[in-house]
Amino acid sequence: MAEEIRVKVEELQNFIADIFQRCGLTEHDARITAEVLVLADRRGIESHGVARLQRYVDDLKRGVIRAETRVTIVRETAVSLVVDGNGGMGQSLTHAVMRHCIAKARQNYMCFATIRNSNHYGIAGYYVLMALKENMIGIAMTNTAPLVVPTFGRDVVIGTNPIAIGFPGKKERPFLLDMATSTVPRGKLEVYARKEEPIPDSWACGADGLPSTDPVRMLDLMINRGGGGLLPLGGATELTSGHKGYGLSAMVDILCGGLSSGALGTDVYGKKNAPAEVAHFVGAINPAAFLGLDELQCNIDYYMQMLKNAAKATGQSRIFVAGEKEYEAEERNRITVPLEPKVFTNLNRIGQEYNLTLAAA
Amino acid sequence: MAEEIRVKVEELQNFIADIFQRCGLTEHDARITAEVLVLADRRGIESHGVARLQRYVDDLKRGVIRAETRVTIVRETAVSLVVDGNGGMGQSLTHAVMRHCIAKARQNYMCFATIRNSNHYGIAGYYVLMALKENMIGIAMTNTAPLVVPTFGRDVVIGTNPIAIGFPGKKERPFLLDMATSTVPRGKLEVYARKEEPIPDSWACGADGLPSTDPVRMLDLMINRGGGGLLPLGGATELTSGHKGYGLSAMVDILCGGLSSGALGTDVYGKKNAPAEVAHFVGAINPAAFLGLDELQCNIDYYMQMLKNAAKATGQSRIFVAGEKEYEAEERNRITVPLEPKVFTNLNRIGQEYNLTLAAA
Repeated sequence: MAEEIRVKVEELQNFIADIFQRCGLTEHDARITAEVLVLADRRGIESHGVARLQRYVDDLKRGVIRAETRVTIVRETAVSLVVDGNGGMGQSLTHAVMRHCIAKARQNYMCFATIRNSNHYGIAGYYVLMALKENMIGIAMTNTAPLVVPTFGRDVVIGTNPIAIGFPGKKERPFLLDMATSTVPRGKLEVYARKEEPIPDSWACGADGLPSTDPVRMLDLMINRGGGGLLPLGGATELTSGHKGYGLSAMVDILCGGLSSGALGTDVYGKKNAPAEVAHFVGAINPAAFLGLDELQCNIDYYMQMLKNAAKATGQSRIFVAGEKEYEAEERNRITVPLEPKVFTNLNRIGQEYNLTLAAA
Repeated sequence: MAEEIRVKVEELQNFIADIFQRCGLTEHDARITAEVLVLADRRGIESHGVARLQRYVDDLKRGVIRAETRVTIVRETAVSLVVDGNGGMGQSLTHAVMRHCIAKARQNYMCFATIRNSNHYGIAGYYVLMALKENMIGIAMTNTAPLVVPTFGRDVVIGTNPIAIGFPGKKERPFLLDMATSTVPRGKLEVYARKEEPIPDSWACGADGLPSTDPVRMLDLMINRGGGGLLPLGGATELTSGHKGYGLSAMVDILCGGLSSGALGTDVYGKKNAPAEVAHFVGAINPAAFLGLDELQCNIDYYMQMLKNAAKATGQSRIFVAGEKEYEAEERNRITVPLEPKVFTNLNRIGQEYNLTLAAA
C-alpha cells in the first residue's frame, strides 16, 4: 500500500466515537465501539475496522441497530449467562457481557455467555484480549451473515463464523488464534478481483456448488445472491476436508445461536431492513481453575519457543504463532494507523454530516 | 471392501477385553477399553479401532503403558480438574475422568478436565458420546504423536490433535463433530500409496516443507523420520489458510498439555521406549447452564433440518451433518462389524498367545 494514508490512532478513535455519539450511543458505548474498530485496523484486520463505519451508521439511522446498549440477562448461574442484546451494538453489548464473565471467572473460575439479538461485533479477538489483560484465558465466537456453502451444498447457509481463543504467556506475547472457519473472508476475493488474478479452488464455489477460480464471477454471484458462496476451511470436497471447516462453522453457530435460542444459519441477517439477530458466545477461564497463571504462562512460553524454533521450509525464514503477526502490526501502528485512501475519504464524507473532519497524520 | 470379514460385535468386544485382562487390566478397564476400540470400528473409524490392538499390547508388555488405571487428582474446583494419569491406558483413564466431569456438571453446570501422563485414548468421540448419553454437551480433545508440520516449517512438531464436540438433538441424532486438525490422518496416505494414486497437495509435505503429491515418498519419509509430514487443515500455505489448521492444532495442544503441565508438541512420544505422555482435555456442559435441555434439543433439530434441506451441489444428493455418517455406520454395524482380513488375521495371531480365537460371523 504505497498510497496508504496514516492517521493518528487517538484522533481516529475520537473521530469514530464522536460519530457514534451523534448516532445516539452514550459516550461510553461510543468509545468502546470506536476502540474495537480502530484496534482491528491497528492489528492489520482492515476488513473489520473503521471501513465498516458506514454500515453501522446506516443501520443505526434506520433503527435496524438500536443505539441503546441494553443487556437483558435471561438466565444466570455461577458459571454461565444467557443474554438478550435487544438489537443493540455488538461491540458495547459484548464488552459488557465479557466484563461480567471475567468478574464471575475471578470468583467461580470460569464463565461462558451466549448472547442473542446482537449485531456485528467487529474482531472476535478484542473480547479475548479483554480476558488476556486480566490474565485469563479468553474465548469469543460469533455467527455471521450466511456467506458460506456447506459441504455438498450450493447455497449459502452458514456464516464465516470465527473462533477466537487466547492464552497468556510470560515473556512471550499471548497465543491468540482468531480465525474465520471459511477458507477466506469475502474481502480476499475482492483483492483478487481487483488484481484480475485467479483464486485457489478452496475459496469459493459457483451456483452449481462446484469450486471456481474466477473471483469476479464469484463476487457477482454473491452480491446478487445468485447462488454459490465462500467455501469452508478445507475447500469444496471431503477429499481436502472441507467438511471439517463446515463442522467447525456449525459448532460456532450452535454455541452462539443454539445455546441462546437466537438466530441460526440463514436466519442471521434473515430479513431485510430488520435486526440482523447476530449471536455470540464468549467466555473467560481463570487459570486458577487449573494449575494457576504462572505455570500456564511458563508452558505457553515453552511451547511458543518450540514452534518458532522449528526447522523452516525451503524459502521461509520464520514460523509464526497465532496472533504474532497481529501483535507486530499493533505495535507498528501504536501512534498512527494506515488507512486505504478510499476509506479515509469515506470517513470524511460521513464526518461532513456532523461537521467532523479527520486529518492525515 | 469386498473381502471384508464380519465379526459379531459382542464376540469382538469380549475377545479384545479378554486380551487386555491378560495384559493386566482389571475386568472393568478391559471392558471399557474394548468398547472404545470396537465402537471406532462400528462407526467406520477403523484407524482408531481394534487394528491398534497390537500396539497397546506391546506397550503394556514393555511397561511403556501401565496396566493399572490410577487417576491422581492434582487439582479440583467445582468446575475443573487437573488429572495425572500415571502412564495408564488412555481409554479407562479418560472414561473415569469424563464420568467425574459429568457428575460435577450435573451439580455445578459444567466441568472441564485436563489430563497429563496418559496414552492414546482411541476416538475422541467416545467421551463426547458419554456426555450425550447423559443429555449433556460433551467435549474431548487430545494431543498426539507429532505427525504434522506447522505452517512454514519442514519438521513435524504438532500432532493431528483432534477436536470432538457434541450437542444433543431431540428427533435428530446429536451433532457430533470429531475431526483431526490435520487435513487427513496418516492412514489416508497409506490408502493412496496402495492405490498408487497421487494425493492432493494439501495433505503432506516433503523434507523441504513443500507440498508433495507422492504418497509413497511421503510415507517413506515419515516412517524413517526423514523430515516432512502431514499438513494442517488448509494445506501448506497461508493462501489456502493452512495456518488455521496449525492454530487449531496448537490450541488443542495447549488445552491438553499446556493446562495440565503435561507434554506438548515434540515432547509427546518424545522418548523411545518411555511413556508417551499423551495429554487430553475433556468436559461436560449441562444444558441447564443455558436454556435447558429441551430448548437446546429443539434448536439442534431445527438447525440440522436447515442444513440437510439446503440445495445440493451438482452431482450431490445429500448434505451431511457432523456425525451423521458415523451414526449410520454404527447402526449398520449393530450386530456385526466389518474388519479388514489383515486385521482379522492379526487379532487371531495376538489371541494365539492367550489361547483365544476370534471367529468370523
